[in-house]
Amino acid sequence: MAAGKGTRMKSALPKVLHKLAGRSLLQHVLNMTSGLAAQRSVVITGHGADEVEAAVAAPQLSFVRQMPQLGTGHAIQQAVPALEGEGTTLILNGDVPLIKQATAQRLIDACEGRALVLLTIHLQDPTGYGRILRDAEGAVLGIKEHKDATPAERAIREGYTGMMAAPTGALKRWVGQLNNNNAQGEYYLTDIVAMAVAEGVPVLGVAAPNETEVLGVNSPVQLADLERRFQREQAHELMEAGVRLADPARFDLRGQLQCGQDVEIDVNCVFEGEVSLGDNVRIGAHCVIRNASIAAGARIHEFTHIDGEKAGVKVGTGALIGPFARLRPGADLGAEVHIGNFVEVKNSSLAKGAKANHLAYLGDATVGERVNYGAGSITANYDGANKHRTEIGADVHVGSNCVLVAPITIGAGATIGGGSTITKPVGAGELSVARGKQVSIAGWSRPLKKR
Amino acid sequence: MAAGKGTRMKSALPKVLHKLAGRSLLQHVLNMTSGLAAQRSVVITGHGADEVEAAVAAPQLSFVRQMPQLGTGHAIQQAVPALEGEGTTLILNGDVPLIKQATAQRLIDACEGRALVLLTIHLQDPTGYGRILRDAEGAVLGIKEHKDATPAERAIREGYTGMMAAPTGALKRWVGQLNNNNAQGEYYLTDIVAMAVAEGVPVLGVAAPNETEVLGVNSPVQLADLERRFQREQAHELMEAGVRLADPARFDLRGQLQCGQDVEIDVNCVFEGEVSLGDNVRIGAHCVIRNASIAAGARIHEFTHIDGEKAGVKVGTGALIGPFARLRPGADLGAEVHIGNFVEVKNSSLAKGAKANHLAYLGDATVGERVNYGAGSITANYDGANKHRTEIGADVHVGSNCVLVAPITIGAGATIGGGSTITKPVGAGELSVARGKQVSIAGWSRPLKKR
Amino acid sequence: MAAGKGTRMKSALPKVLHKLAGRSLLQHVLNMTSGLAAQRSVVITGHGADEVEAAVAAPQLSFVRQMPQLGTGHAIQQAVPALEGEGTTLILNGDVPLIKQATAQRLIDACEGRALVLLTIHLQDPTGYGRILRDAEGAVLGIKEHKDATPAERAIREGYTGMMAAPTGALKRWVGQLNNNNAQGEYYLTDIVAMAVAEGVPVLGVAAPNETEVLGVNSPVQLADLERRFQREQAHELMEAGVRLADPARFDLRGQLQCGQDVEIDVNCVFEGEVSLGDNVRIGAHCVIRNASIAAGARIHEFTHIDGEKAGVKVGTGALIGPFARLRPGADLGAEVHIGNFVEVKNSSLAKGAKANHLAYLGDATVGERVNYGAGSITANYDGANKHRTEIGADVHVGSNCVLVAPITIGAGATIGGGSTITKPVGAGELSVARGKQVSIAGWSRPLKKR
Repeated sequence: MAAGKGTRMKSALPKVLHKLAGRSLLQHVLNMTSGLAAQRSVVITGHGADEVEAAVAAPQLSFVRQMPQLGTGHAIQQAVPALEGEGTTLILNGDVPLIKQATAQRLIDACEGRALVLLTIHLQDPTGYGRILRDAEGAVLGIKEHKDATPAERAIREGYTGMMAAPTGALKRWVGQLNNNNAQGEYYLTDIVAMAVAEGVPVLGVAAPNETEVLGVNSPVQLADLERRFQREQAHELMEAGVRLADPARFDLRGQLQCGQDVEIDVNCVFEGEVSLGDNVRIGAHCVIRNASIAAGARIHEFTHIDGEKAGVKVGTGALIGPFARLRPGADLGAEVHIGNFVEVKNSSLAKGAKANHLAYLGDATVGERVNYGAGSITANYDGANKHRTEIGADVHVGSNCVLVAPITIGAGATIGGGSTITKPVGAGELSVARGKQVSIAGWSRPLKKR
Repeated sequence: MAAGKGTRMKSALPKVLHKLAGRSLLQHVLNMTSGLAAQRSVVITGHGADEVEAAVAAPQLSFVRQMPQLGTGHAIQQAVPALEGEGTTLILNGDVPLIKQATAQRLIDACEGRALVLLTIHLQDPTGYGRILRDAEGAVLGIKEHKDATPAERAIREGYTGMMAAPTGALKRWVGQLNNNNAQGEYYLTDIVAMAVAEGVPVLGVAAPNETEVLGVNSPVQLADLERRFQREQAHELMEAGVRLADPARFDLRGQLQCGQDVEIDVNCVFEGEVSLGDNVRIGAHCVIRNASIAAGARIHEFTHIDGEKAGVKVGTGALIGPFARLRPGADLGAEVHIGNFVEVKNSSLAKGAKANHLAYLGDATVGERVNYGAGSITANYDGANKHRTEIGADVHVGSNCVLVAPITIGAGATIGGGSTITKPVGAGELSVARGKQVSIAGWSRPLKKR
Repeated sequence: MAAGKGTRMKSALPKVLHKLAGRSLLQHVLNMTSGLAAQRSVVITGHGADEVEAAVAAPQLSFVRQMPQLGTGHAIQQAVPALEGEGTTLILNGDVPLIKQATAQRLIDACEGRALVLLTIHLQDPTGYGRILRDAEGAVLGIKEHKDATPAERAIREGYTGMMAAPTGALKRWVGQLNNNNAQGEYYLTDIVAMAVAEGVPVLGVAAPNETEVLGVNSPVQLADLERRFQREQAHELMEAGVRLADPARFDLRGQLQCGQDVEIDVNCVFEGEVSLGDNVRIGAHCVIRNASIAAGARIHEFTHIDGEKAGVKVGTGALIGPFARLRPGADLGAEVHIGNFVEVKNSSLAKGAKANHLAYLGDATVGERVNYGAGSITANYDGANKHRTEIGADVHVGSNCVLVAPITIGAGATIGGGSTITKPVGAGELSVARGKQVSIAGWSRPLKKR
């Protein structure tokens, strides 16, 4: 069910497309269900249906639309024509993102295509939840809405989460019989519980292991709360696997993080997309790392920004990066490369032991082994219309504040004098200088401060 | 009351001038009272009176001094000569910064110029608070200090917060009758409760809605605690208005933040002064933003520092800023401007679509539409004595590592070759180059490492 | 005891060498015991013994090895040959890092060389701890392991922490009598309690003041938990001393921080090694500071990275540093020096009032008073083999994007024109320029975008 507007989000974005840890709420649910071996997966859209369907489209998904939205029972009425056979139908909410596969599987297993199985939650204070009414033997008799419950019923600590599994055939029959004779004029899915009881179909309650799995998102406050719960969970899992986090409350992972042994991550780091960290990698405080592969022993100093976007970034074994370094898509750094402060690398490969330690730009360049790329030097890769490559051979020494005007080739072992703008190729072993003659004027008076 | 020294602050600054969310404790109280339509507002100063009065001076405020400080009753004795008429006097503490206007108004409304109204607080554990003694009907009989209370009295969970509203005339009479016959030799304002009871003046207790409103600051620990409570409150309010905060516990606002729809703010951002964010603005992690106006759709990447100080900073619609960008006072960026890493912009306007993406300085410059300002290029705006302007026309392409020596004009469509130091005006459409001729020396030997 | 492997750490590093606040767990314990005036300190190593011993070696320490590890009693069996006399032996755990000296001293004082003293802890939920069994008079009778305890015993809230003090002579005798007739086949030190009771030696329980002091580290989750407890404690102590922390939950100190009066530290700062901050120093958000001394009134703006390593960094009175500044080892900045954005300073002294405000590198330089070092300027201190010094006299004005090729001297009052590469000395008061002549070509066509 992914048709709701989410008015309290106060957003132009349909509620289920709001992001938690970098993925939409609905995508969290769909990623989980993709592991359930379902015969078919039907997404019920409504508000912002075009946008929602475009955002999560996948071969195994089909969509039905619920327009207008006349309640949860009405939503399922739209979906049942798409369901076939006598199996089990699992009903989930697109705005309840953190339900785990094990819990969903427990609902399916309990259903066996013949029981109606409600996902419930035991809470100290279930205010707002419908209460699960059971008979003396524990059989579920029904769900009583919080506002309609007697004091004795309100004392029940088991609430209904909105999720269930049902025998497909019976579900189709039941939702066909729903009516909207209630104050809201809506079709309530929960009315099928009474139908099941009346038919003698077993109604079971399966309790979720914790509240996090069943919490929905209705507002930015709830979204932020679930984000933190999810981040704490991820941090805990990484630590259990041996990753050392300086502060699990100041760690954000929005995607996948693969870690080798003895990885250390300092405070306030943010990881996005697909990131892998080899053995003994250390990430300093305040780093942002997206779509990058960082090899064993590399050290990423504080305030480093790595964003591989689609092309990715590779950092080689034992490399030293930062602080204040920025690696952009296509940066491919070999072993023991050093990238220092205020240095930007984009779409460039640096071979083993190459260094660019200070205030520099390397774009569209191929840099050989052991090259020393001087402070303030720039590859002028863009002529205002097209990008060109710079080729720098092994052991080249580029002085400070140079401009290498691409396309250009600097031969192995060459030296570029500081302050040179290099527009013509430099042969291997050559010293190339392009600078003005130094002229000094004695007794020169500097401008005076104007009043 | 703002006369206390605040010994436990261990600071040279008078206690009430310590800052919470960027404003002094006293200023928080005064900002709140400015909405109460008081006939007069009297600030009682003492320790550091000159400094305190200078810090908060405003036309509607008057000051009286309490020197030496002989207790709360003594403080009010100094103030009463400044009070006139038979209305209501509201007594607040300059070191209790988070009391809300609604609460203050409730005290005033309950007083009606004829009752003595104590602001109280209900706590699970009111240790340290004086307890509110009431008779069987609930009428307030007095306040018993924690240290003097019997076990039964200590079980009372309603404490006195130090704030009250009183009939002005009666207050003047009562404080005139206070004595200091007690262990501390101080005049206690709370002694007026017994006087009111004795006179048959109604004594009422009005309870604060939560503890945060009545907590005082006596130490850096308490200051940090209140800072966090206040920040959480602000974060909550913004989220309720639709702003999406990645982590409300890592958000700091010291001033005013106006947000459009669908604004997203990542972890660890700090906002100061007056900041406005248009619809769909996204602020990346680890940004610091002061006194700036950021238009709809702009994207502020991680590690961006924006400080408009007094002149302000404007960022146009759809602009892309950062990471590692710094915008300083007078930066006025048009729509779709790009400011990239290690770029500083000060007192400069950039027209629509202009770009300075890498390692550059733009100071005192006017930059036309679609200008591409190359990596490492600098406006030399300061001759050692005075600042001068640089004018760059539309569609200019400035190469890498250029110096534009101001005052200077670059005509529209001109191109500046990389590595050029430009000291003379460049006409529209011209290519201007100022660089040394490239000379290469074959077989040059680099210096050897000295032992 | 420091012999354990720490399997749950999932690390190649021996458990006791894992770091908490920058120091190994074992080093925390050893630093504490160094204040106890012990006659000898014996560290029992085992897993990774070579590495552990090398890491903590100190003149006053001796090491014994426990190989294989056959239980706590076996560990002490290895140590007792190194113990002499009839004094007190204090037994601590190398993976319980936060025990305080006062607590250790209480154990020693209670022992007086004649009682067996167990360090205990009172907890609401002591699950997992062995319970302290006492008789009606409170005398300790023994320790019952959690898993062997009866329901009544499990209700006991006093648990054994694993630490104790014992009469040295008796301890030697007792551990000699231990056996490993138990399910694990290990020698348990706790078995000596029964021996002491049997001998009529008094067995006392001394309770730790809080759980933090007795928590051990067995996993990265526990390590992160203790790290946070320790950081909160340090933050609290600093605040009690008058330091103002914007958010004590976002403050990290891994070493020693000396603060003067009225120091303010904004969110997310990390301090390492030895750092001192003078009166009125303000540290902006997101700073990393290691091994540095910052004088009174200096202001460190956001995103500043200071790392003095061994040589240290000094920042003078009233200096302004950052944002986005990086100070490296040997940076020695005088009073009122300004270091601005994207500026790196290494092994250089700047005299009073010198400024390098934008995108610059100063390495191996001596900079005189009031020097203005232009944006984008670089000291080319490295010729590919050796480092050389740059000497800049007082009142020199270095233009933008200059290269000063070291070794070089710029005389006092000299001016270096923007864009100059300076290779020859410049005399005092001279204007020196080294740049190409500016040539303009009208009507030049820029390259077109290739398809």
